[in-house]
Amino acid sequence: MKKSLPLSAIRINDSYWNRYIKLIPDKVIPYQWEVLNDLRDDTPPSYCLKNFRIAAGDEEGKQQGMVFQDSDAAKWLEAVAYSLAGRSDPELEKTADDVIALIGRAQESDGYINTYFSLNYPHEKWMNLTEGHELYCAGHLIEAAVAYYETTGKKTLLDIVCRLADLICKTFGPEEGQMHGYPGHPEVELALVKLYRATGVSRYLDMAKYFIDTRGGQPNYFVEEKKRPGSRNIWGSFFDPKYFQSHLPVREQVTAEGHSVRALYLFSAMADIAQEYNDSGLLKSCRVLWDNIVQKRMYITGSIGSSGFLERFTVDYDLPNDSNYSETCASIALAMFGLRMAKATGDASYFDTVELALYNTVRSGISLEGDRYFYVNPMEVWPQACIDFSSRSHVKPERQKWFDCACCPTNVARTFTSLGQYIYFQDADELFINLFIQNETSFTVNEKNVSLSLITDYPKTGNVKFVLKGDAALSLNIRIPSFAEDFSVIKNGSPAAGEKKNNYYRIANVRGGDEIYVSFSVKPRIIYPNPKVHYNCGKAAIARGPEIFCFEQCDNDENLASLSLDCERPLTESWRDDLLGGLMIIKAKGKRLIEPEDAHSFSEKFNPRTEDAELTAIPYGFWCNRTPGEMLVWIRTE
Amino acid sequence: MKKSLPLSAIRINDSYWNRYIKLIPDKVIPYQWEVLNDLRDDTPPSYCLKNFRIAAGDEEGKQQGMVFQDSDAAKWLEAVAYSLAGRSDPELEKTADDVIALIGRAQESDGYINTYFSLNYPHEKWMNLTEGHELYCAGHLIEAAVAYYETTGKKTLLDIVCRLADLICKTFGPEEGQMHGYPGHPEVELALVKLYRATGVSRYLDMAKYFIDTRGGQPNYFVEEKKRPGSRNIWGSFFDPKYFQSHLPVREQVTAEGHSVRALYLFSAMADIAQEYNDSGLLKSCRVLWDNIVQKRMYITGSIGSSGFLERFTVDYDLPNDSNYSETCASIALAMFGLRMAKATGDASYFDTVELALYNTVRSGISLEGDRYFYVNPMEVWPQACIDFSSRSHVKPERQKWFDCACCPTNVARTFTSLGQYIYFQDADELFINLFIQNETSFTVNEKNVSLSLITDYPKTGNVKFVLKGDAALSLNIRIPSFAEDFSVIKNGSPAAGEKKNNYYRIANVRGGDEIYVSFSVKPRIIYPNPKVHYNCGKAAIARGPEIFCFEQCDNDENLASLSLDCERPLTESWRDDLLGGLMIIKAKGKRLIEPEDAHSFSEKFNPRTEDAELTAIPYGFWCNRTPGEMLVWIRTE
Repeated sequence: MKKSLPLSAIRINDSYWNRYIKLIPDKVIPYQWEVLNDLRDDTPPSYCLKNFRIAAGDEEGKQQGMVFQDSDAAKWLEAVAYSLAGRSDPELEKTADDVIALIGRAQESDGYINTYFSLNYPHEKWMNLTEGHELYCAGHLIEAAVAYYETTGKKTLLDIVCRLADLICKTFGPEEGQMHGYPGHPEVELALVKLYRATGVSRYLDMAKYFIDTRGGQPNYFVEEKKRPGSRNIWGSFFDPKYFQSHLPVREQVTAEGHSVRALYLFSAMADIAQEYNDSGLLKSCRVLWDNIVQKRMYITGSIGSSGFLERFTVDYDLPNDSNYSETCASIALAMFGLRMAKATGDASYFDTVELALYNTVRSGISLEGDRYFYVNPMEVWPQACIDFSSRSHVKPERQKWFDCACCPTNVARTFTSLGQYIYFQDADELFINLFIQNETSFTVNEKNVSLSLITDYPKTGNVKFVLKGDAALSLNIRIPSFAEDFSVIKNGSPAAGEKKNNYYRIANVRGGDEIYVSFSVKPRIIYPNPKVHYNCGKAAIARGPEIFCFEQCDNDENLASLSLDCERPLTESWRDDLLGGLMIIKAKGKRLIEPEDAHSFSEKFNPRTEDAELTAIPYGFWCNRTPGEMLVWIRTE
Repeated sequence: MKKSLPLSAIRINDSYWNRYIKLIPDKVIPYQWEVLNDLRDDTPPSYCLKNFRIAAGDEEGKQQGMVFQDSDAAKWLEAVAYSLAGRSDPELEKTADDVIALIGRAQESDGYINTYFSLNYPHEKWMNLTEGHELYCAGHLIEAAVAYYETTGKKTLLDIVCRLADLICKTFGPEEGQMHGYPGHPEVELALVKLYRATGVSRYLDMAKYFIDTRGGQPNYFVEEKKRPGSRNIWGSFFDPKYFQSHLPVREQVTAEGHSVRALYLFSAMADIAQEYNDSGLLKSCRVLWDNIVQKRMYITGSIGSSGFLERFTVDYDLPNDSNYSETCASIALAMFGLRMAKATGDASYFDTVELALYNTVRSGISLEGDRYFYVNPMEVWPQACIDFSSRSHVKPERQKWFDCACCPTNVARTFTSLGQYIYFQDADELFINLFIQNETSFTVNEKNVSLSLITDYPKTGNVKFVLKGDAALSLNIRIPSFAEDFSVIKNGSPAAGEKKNNYYRIANVRGGDEIYVSFSVKPRIIYPNPKVHYNCGKAAIARGPEIFCFEQCDNDENLASLSLDCERPLTESWRDDLLGGLMIIKAKGKRLIEPEDAHSFSEKFNPRTEDAELTAIPYGFWCNRTPGEMLVWIRTE
């Protein structure tokens, strides 16, 4: 069974990713610690740690913030855990240990942890699975505990969440006297799989499977729940079973529906369960859902959630550019699903999408200073039109310091500190390389220690060198990205014999001392839309390697919509070391519509006139790190 | 002072408009009567008349429906009043008299009428001007009363509303002990002007002026109101002073802000007050606001309100095509404002916009069967993407039987039954012809009776004939539409001497027996957007005379976004007597993007290919009267 190499075995030192990977422990974790402790004057109070202190009896008061506010602390802890795998930081570890102790004191005697219900509605526990987010918060705490255990070896938090998981296993299940429900926001399912893998306790895996298998049955649990005496709406009377992925049993769902993060956390767990139980039927369902997303409901930047209302999927090919949600968390969830699908199927093509999400939308989610975040990641922004109390009030033209619903910032932190989990899979003497991020790693093959250096400046170039050391033979399976039409593989100076299978190039019998070079093209390319995407008819986009490019006002003047791209003329790339820590820019030729003197918005007297324009594009993940302004991915073509 | 000719003096018999003008008394008024009385199984209950019956003591219960539900009955009555000017209908008049008697019995002893507050919150009267809509409902009742009085001569309702207006005049004003507020939803202001004009009681006019002059001062009345003890939110805690046009004193407002109908009802009253008080400063403010709307915030179909959220204006040139509001009522309000501006300024160019609104959006608001309505009038519809709980759930691809907030259907009814008010202005011996709708009218000039026949098949052609009868001389001022580049005017067989002034062609000394022919071109024309409207860069639209054209799926197959228009090739018009009661269709040449076999929404492997396409457009006002489907106004150009 394919597994990621443990994070503690991977040392990333990558000219492209270092700017983010150093950013998280240096800036992001301290910044978020201040926010979560209400220590900053320039962000709204989070109450997150305060809630735990109240629940622990250290302070007086009620829980404040979102019903799922606890999860911010959990994701922060998870990011801390991963960052401790990358470098030692005794002070940070001490802080984390203190938070863990606090959480332990906030835990009720039966194992229950949730400050919203413990403090505000102690008699309503598990009564509102639809909106209550208790299982969601439990899931994030479990993920944090597994991470902290795996990177520090410390078991305190693991023990805490095992008591919580045991309570969940006792409370939910098929037996009489148990609740036959499932979470309104999936998350605990994939966390329980992680807990099973960390502890070997199979009831956690069974619990996850129960939640998966029960979901969407008739009568709908959420509908029934609302009918019960004492039922109370937390967020109003809204209910749509699709929003909660409860319209059908999950194995019968063929389109990705509802809230995107909920959907993708659910699908991630489904892929885990399919792998663990070798459940080909469930895996097939996962494939159908994946294909629906990637083919028909995903933006070119690897983002999902077309509706500006409710952060949700809409219908096939409905991908509006300027009013979408494309939540940062949803792309993280998409990467998580893709990682699991690649593991379960052995097909590297899932990483084309994982890469799109990580290199574009997830990076867009955080500023290069680490203290500003996008929740919504549009394909096109016209700042003047993004006003409050309007259809586009959810689209922020600049990253924000924090959010009332602050799921994204900590999610980016835990994702970038655990990027290593995406790079390699191992399965016996087969090593799979999924992402091209420079690092050194060591692992064992047939009980022999080997080390591997992956040396690259990707995505600046598509040149990747592998140097294996140690006394063992293994097969290297190197992912060939879908954009790489041609590629060459050299082993110790000669073309390497191998075969392309499942979108990996497999080179058998690689031994200590072998050096392997892979080279593929990352030259700029033009991407065209399917005309079924109404919004993009007559447009095109530019990509290079895994990066999607965009046009910014600071490079192209205002009114980007007035620009058009000449697809027949060459795209010129140039590396700019001086810009934002180093990035590729692409120049193109095109036209600009000339604005008339007449101020009217339309006229039969207008006669469209254009002038030549030189267009400049930068990678989408870097947008809005200079002077804020308009941004555009899909550009009209001439 | 220019005044509209009274409705009772105008007999419309017009090949184009008859389909609507006959529809209202034949179908719409009876249909709406059933809805307002909860007699239909296929529409949600309105409670509107039931609320009045409860308030009158005929039934038991509480008020149900919207806080402004009373206004639906008022607008229905107003439509009935106007329809009685067009044709006698004793049975309908008896029904209306009964409703009026019912309203009289629902009136409290001090003159107060509002079933929401009388029945549900009797101690909260006038306490929530922001949301309460008491003055709004009063305004609509006053408009109905004036209409009923003017067309039937009956004073019962007029007396009722005078008592209500007297209460308002006592309650509000600058004196100590009076409330210094103004309505959250403007409407009563223009109604009080009408009441003044009908009764000659100047305090009603002064009251309207007080509301106008007080609005938007500091401290903001609505903000202060919320602070008072006992303040209760009707619709939640939302507040934005711009939404309520209370961010600045009205004379300092230079952009149209907030809820479009509120804004335009307010501006209409401002134009009335400017005319009545000969207030050039206020008229200048009206001009500035008008220009802002018409130049920068109005759709090509004469509709307003770009935001799908809160039915509101956004910013200059922000005119998205598929997520806008463009409420039917807002275009009615725009026509009302334009009518008043033309009266106050004597400039016919305001009627270019009035005509756009009436011929396009207001007509779009009602089906040719009279029993289906659009609230939202988009420029582009992709039905599959208009799903519930999404950014486009407000856009309905088909007209609806009714709405929970049902302002539009009765508003269309009262507008089409009072279309005559737009056709003529008289000022002493000057007659102004604003709209080309075939009719016969009679009026007096220097105390002598004259009659005028306006004979036309406009907009099928731009040929209009005027035949004057009677023993008087007058000047005919014939509006020359902005789209009519060339025009000819013939008087009794010879070119008519005259001058073009304020966009009217003025022919002096027209006498009984004179026949005047005006002819102008209504040939199809292409309208281009200002590139400042980002959404329309690279697109064009087709118009002919006052009608904007659109493409429908039933004529052009699915995926209208894949079509492009060849602007260099001729547009071919043909009259279709067989279609929807007679309309012009326009054929054009263009291309269609061919959809690839590959289902992906984007790909570097796609290579855009097109095929020739013949495009068919019909007038926007007729859309969705055949097989529902996609619709498109702005089309890509080649």
